[in-house]
Amino acid sequence: MKPSCVEFSLEVREKYSHDWTEDLRFIPDAVALPTSSAELQAVLAYAYERGIPIIPAGGRTGLSGGMLPVFGGWVISMEKLNRILHIDTANLFAVVEAGVITQELQEAVERYGLLYPPDPSSRGSCTIGGNIAHNAGGVRAVKYGTTREYVLGLEAFLPDGRPLKTGSTTLKNSTGYNLTQLLVGSEGTLAVIYSATLKLLPHPRHVRTLLFGFPDAVSAVEAVVEVLQSGILPSAIEFMEREAVLFGEAYLGEKLYPQAEALGGFLLVEVDGNHVEALEADCVQIEERALAAGAKQSWYAQTTEERDRLWRLRRCLGIAVKSSGPYKEEDTAVPRTVLPSLLQKVKTLGRSYGFRSVCYGHVGDGNLHINILREGLPDTVWNKEIPKAIEELFHFVVAHGGALSGEHGIGWVQRRYMPIQFAEHELLLMRQLKQVFDPKGLLNPGKIFP
Amino acid sequence: MKPSCVEFSLEVREKYSHDWTEDLRFIPDAVALPTSSAELQAVLAYAYERGIPIIPAGGRTGLSGGMLPVFGGWVISMEKLNRILHIDTANLFAVVEAGVITQELQEAVERYGLLYPPDPSSRGSCTIGGNIAHNAGGVRAVKYGTTREYVLGLEAFLPDGRPLKTGSTTLKNSTGYNLTQLLVGSEGTLAVIYSATLKLLPHPRHVRTLLFGFPDAVSAVEAVVEVLQSGILPSAIEFMEREAVLFGEAYLGEKLYPQAEALGGFLLVEVDGNHVEALEADCVQIEERALAAGAKQSWYAQTTEERDRLWRLRRCLGIAVKSSGPYKEEDTAVPRTVLPSLLQKVKTLGRSYGFRSVCYGHVGDGNLHINILREGLPDTVWNKEIPKAIEELFHFVVAHGGALSGEHGIGWVQRRYMPIQFAEHELLLMRQLKQVFDPKGLLNPGKIFP
Repeated sequence: MKPSCVEFSLEVREKYSHDWTEDLRFIPDAVALPTSSAELQAVLAYAYERGIPIIPAGGRTGLSGGMLPVFGGWVISMEKLNRILHIDTANLFAVVEAGVITQELQEAVERYGLLYPPDPSSRGSCTIGGNIAHNAGGVRAVKYGTTREYVLGLEAFLPDGRPLKTGSTTLKNSTGYNLTQLLVGSEGTLAVIYSATLKLLPHPRHVRTLLFGFPDAVSAVEAVVEVLQSGILPSAIEFMEREAVLFGEAYLGEKLYPQAEALGGFLLVEVDGNHVEALEADCVQIEERALAAGAKQSWYAQTTEERDRLWRLRRCLGIAVKSSGPYKEEDTAVPRTVLPSLLQKVKTLGRSYGFRSVCYGHVGDGNLHINILREGLPDTVWNKEIPKAIEELFHFVVAHGGALSGEHGIGWVQRRYMPIQFAEHELLLMRQLKQVFDPKGLLNPGKIFP
Repeated sequence: MKPSCVEFSLEVREKYSHDWTEDLRFIPDAVALPTSSAELQAVLAYAYERGIPIIPAGGRTGLSGGMLPVFGGWVISMEKLNRILHIDTANLFAVVEAGVITQELQEAVERYGLLYPPDPSSRGSCTIGGNIAHNAGGVRAVKYGTTREYVLGLEAFLPDGRPLKTGSTTLKNSTGYNLTQLLVGSEGTLAVIYSATLKLLPHPRHVRTLLFGFPDAVSAVEAVVEVLQSGILPSAIEFMEREAVLFGEAYLGEKLYPQAEALGGFLLVEVDGNHVEALEADCVQIEERALAAGAKQSWYAQTTEERDRLWRLRRCLGIAVKSSGPYKEEDTAVPRTVLPSLLQKVKTLGRSYGFRSVCYGHVGDGNLHINILREGLPDTVWNKEIPKAIEELFHFVVAHGGALSGEHGIGWVQRRYMPIQFAEHELLLMRQLKQVFDPKGLLNPGKIFP
């Protein structure tokens, strides 16, 4: 019997035809909105028997097209599986359904003095399930790591509806193959995650925030390594080039970063901990390092409101660039010393292929978001030439020990570049792993693999 | 042509017939000692063609029999692949061959002011490759996590000798399935690891160490949760029951812990960081919490020598118990609040099955090592009854959200208990994953699976 949570109206199907990736749209054949684990399982079993492709969807904020129903099929939206099932304040973990909004979990645990560190810029809309699917990172990864470090266990379903329980409620686990970590980052192609057991930390009591302005973008990213040589591990080191700041200020309609026009690049640095004096001593050291590395200006957020202003700009950049028109976003990750030459490479490619780019990102962990703006580019350039530029960019990244994607995943739009990172037999091995989980090839088809 | 690094003498084969697991011995048909990546690859290709089982071996300090050649075949010892290939002080990573001794890496990076946190008690003999194979943890995992958190990428070989490069030299990576994390903890059954790219951290400048004595063992582990409620994350919280301390002191031939006979259990707590005053404030808070939770005595290590004395005892416990006679070691991991009832369960089982146990472990992360001593137990009890007690123990652990093994792996001696943790179809799925990597079933046969 057809599960009652499946919607077929065009209106609903259109709503689930896109995420935040470029302007791509693929209308699914139906949308399932399960409200319980049992309902999710029933949808899967029903679809499996009929050979219907299944595309799990979270907050649909993805930037690699991971939830696009490119070959039709049913989108399963997790949005109604949005309960925080348990917060264990003694053992420091939470159990949540996949559809819980990341920020809601952050706020819920903060009420108990606890921290859930992964912090994507889309935290107000993205979901824990989506974060796990793409191994989301965000602004705190330099100190705290990515989503992967916080997933202790999962309750998932195989495509035919059989349950798959991975991991445990413990910090350590060496019991069989680590299916938890294999599912993290698998972009909904191996199993459908119903719930996750997530590690929490004591919430640091204090935070201090600094902004540094550099004469140019390259010297800003050069300073990252210098700051880290202090022996201090900041909880965030974020980079914005001038153009990014101007996009953000235009989007928000307010001037947030002083003298943005006169400067070329910014670093937003934050430290956290339990002891104010220690943090302030750290800030002094970090400032010394940043000035020695060429910073021309530094600002120290004196109040929570000042801190929020600094972050508001940083957090809006994705949506600010997106709202300006069509673009392609690359999510490169490199060793930190490679950042200056990566940035130069992007600009050189822009000059030779004729595109403008806006760069910012989590440079504390070497993750640079590169937005290639379409602006007036004709179809032929956009569809034929720009991919060549991206290919050149990725060859540079991989040759320098980097990765095609740091936190957005491969999804639909980056799959063609996978042979730059992997040998043919390595891709074949990954395909065979998928086949073990999903022999009929029904789970999120068309993703990851070229 | 037979690779020249393969030894067939009985003397060599006997040397590689055992690790630290109980008194188990299985003599391999040969031992390969490759000195380069190319030689390792050649051995694998040669053995693969002839259907020879391959058992990768590191420091042979394993406690689950992971390197025992139970079905014969060739042991490949990584001990001559022991070069630290690169320490990148700007990007904070190291590239090392699999045979590097863990402590040697720790010391090498410390010279640059850097920290490689995983710290098994066997660090002077165990290898990075072995640590990766079992996802070793050790004493710092409560704050820093296990080996898994530090492996950014691997160079490995599939059983037929084809290279497999996983991950990247970056902190973030969402590019295809995470084969790095699948190989971590796979106990040499999927691929043979040649080298690893490991994340490093700035070395904390200061450390402070406390020892607390409790009237009984249960109240010591009860205090763990209380200490963590301070909002401080110690870099170690180690537990020893009285018997463990007495074993250690007897082994070392010195009295290291004051009043061990009069007390029932100890917690060794350490904090680290860059600011002495902050650490000392943390110590005051931790001490208050420990005393409130029932500690009768507390000692604060005033000097490096005092600190070393406290740790020397803790670190020798494994070998101290081992040297006392045959035993079985269980490596249970549970949520921290379960520790008191787990400890009581062990003692209850001891009374009903007639065995004595010695318990200690990394209780900050819920990892309790349970040593069941053979002493005068006859063969029938040791071989038939004790496994039933262990089974009962593991049922308790799994029912409370725990894992059969926290850091030792399943290997040979725990495989029969896997159905307690996993459903049949989950074990089948793991077997199928192995088949993708190792279709001939030649890599470390007889391990992990029941």
